[in-house]
Amino acid sequence: MIEHVVLGGARSGKTAFAERATLTLAENAHVTPLYIATAVATDPEMRARIERHVQLRASRFVTREAPRDMLEIVDTLDPDAVCLIDCLATYMGTLWHDAGARVSDDALIAEGTALLEGLARRTPRFVIVSNEVGMGIVPETAAVRMYRDALGRWNALAAALAARVTLTVAGIPVQIKPSQHDTRSREQELRSREQELRSREQELRSRTADSP
Amino acid sequence: MIEHVVLGGARSGKTAFAERATLTLAENAHVTPLYIATAVATDPEMRARIERHVQLRASRFVTREAPRDMLEIVDTLDPDAVCLIDCLATYMGTLWHDAGARVSDDALIAEGTALLEGLARRTPRFVIVSNEVGMGIVPETAAVRMYRDALGRWNALAAALAARVTLTVAGIPVQIKPSQHDTRSREQELRSREQELRSREQELRSRTADSP
Amino acid sequence: MIEHVVLGGARSGKTAFAERATLTLAENAHVTPLYIATAVATDPEMRARIERHVQLRASRFVTREAPRDMLEIVDTLDPDAVCLIDCLATYMGTLWHDAGARVSDDALIAEGTALLEGLARRTPRFVIVSNEVGMGIVPETAAVRMYRDALGRWNALAAALAARVTLTVAGIPVQIKPSQHDTRSREQELRSREQELRSREQELRSRTADSP
Repeated sequence: MIEHVVLGGARSGKTAFAERATLTLAENAHVTPLYIATAVATDPEMRARIERHVQLRASRFVTREAPRDMLEIVDTLDPDAVCLIDCLATYMGTLWHDAGARVSDDALIAEGTALLEGLARRTPRFVIVSNEVGMGIVPETAAVRMYRDALGRWNALAAALAARVTLTVAGIPVQIKPSQHDTRSREQELRSREQELRSREQELRSRTADSP
Repeated sequence: MIEHVVLGGARSGKTAFAERATLTLAENAHVTPLYIATAVATDPEMRARIERHVQLRASRFVTREAPRDMLEIVDTLDPDAVCLIDCLATYMGTLWHDAGARVSDDALIAEGTALLEGLARRTPRFVIVSNEVGMGIVPETAAVRMYRDALGRWNALAAALAARVTLTVAGIPVQIKPSQHDTRSREQELRSREQELRSREQELRSRTADSP
Repeated sequence: MIEHVVLGGARSGKTAFAERATLTLAENAHVTPLYIATAVATDPEMRARIERHVQLRASRFVTREAPRDMLEIVDTLDPDAVCLIDCLATYMGTLWHDAGARVSDDALIAEGTALLEGLARRTPRFVIVSNEVGMGIVPETAAVRMYRDALGRWNALAAALAARVTLTVAGIPVQIKPSQHDTRSREQELRSREQELRSREQELRSRTADSP
């Protein structure tokens, strides 16, 4: 199931926040947290960089690499696993890059739907990181627009399937699901309970006044 | 009047949310909702795409096209009409494109001010969709920077004139006007009413103690 | 100390909001507010533009220019000064530009850390404006990616050191620190006090029933 989606811009602190959220979930469930890495080791320098990150996380996370075919890797996990997937933008970037000139909006969206609905249906619990990339100017090239639009769809689907969604802005987590609207509903409920309490008080007061 | 402004990045679910908001307003007012489309049919392919969208909305909205001179079209509407305008970014893009090399910051802002103040003064009720495009890196070309800056101004003016503003992020509506600050004020008010209630309770309790 | 960080996209109203916040702080402290400008007068046109802005602000702010070596200028201020720094993005842009081909991620981050920790440690009170630039597509050139990533780090550090952080969206201030989470805590507290009140009411009611 998708416990939490953490979205944010570049260097907005999304991974750091998602790591803390995953560690808390894992601690409460008494399991070792997993880190599902999505980067592709395209050359020895990149391989060295990936290894360095695995080492940096080693005291907190066991890393599994899933740059492609993520659901196959997810199917090898314990049913009670708690996993951080970091991140959708890189994973979709690989699909987009692999497809080359044959890339299509429909194919990217179908892949995202299969992946995210697959994660939502499975028993391990996932915290998913993704990039918000749609709040700048429209990209000039069609392929980049397709990447941006498809990632927007993936993010919206992930958020719809998640129990909780956080947007990180300059390192600050802003919870957007459950939404402010729900907070307001709770406040209204509280207010109506207050009125109920007041009218009972009125009643109580009049009974007291009647009492000899 | 401008009932609601819905802002969001690419594929952030802003149109879907704005459609729901418009349908609710129209339903409560017992009128058929209108959809004011802003795309220009530059070629037969685009014309076909526009027609397809009109058909997809046909069971819910009556579509009017207003890629230019929107206030003239608005002036033909019933005074109690409820209209979704989708979207400011496309409408301003057409102005920007039409102006070509003669485009200027001042002219774009004057056009936006006339349009938005015009909508605010008229009796039909408008839900307006626009794109947030200012949270990426500064565009390299001056014309694109001008587009981005002018749309930022249009969005801020639309938001200032609107009763309600929502930012959609990954399909999730985040209400930003009325603001959290107002929510906090309501909470403080609630808290002061609670203290009032407590002091009345004290009073009531002391009267009860005195009573027998 | 860093009182308030105001982040926003292009033309999102961040300076206007930060000016109001600074004026309020200065008024409450009975001091003349300072405006620390960061633009570099690269040519006579830019110099004229800067002077025009200084004049426009003259009735509200005393302007000090600090396009480089900001801490040196800060050290000449009164200890009880209230200052608006507008903005980090321009200030870092100058560092980035000055470094030219020798620019490095580490150097930019070290400069930002020295600056922001320096501001936080000093006694004058700072309101800091910065741009959110990380929510668009990844820039194509490595130098621009470096700028974007380093500014993301500066913004996160500034936000971490600040008592208050606001994101402006289409002219609307959205407070993100103290966070919604804190608002929710206050609501829960309010709810538990309500339950307390109810149980006292129960007790009161039973005593009233017993009383006559």
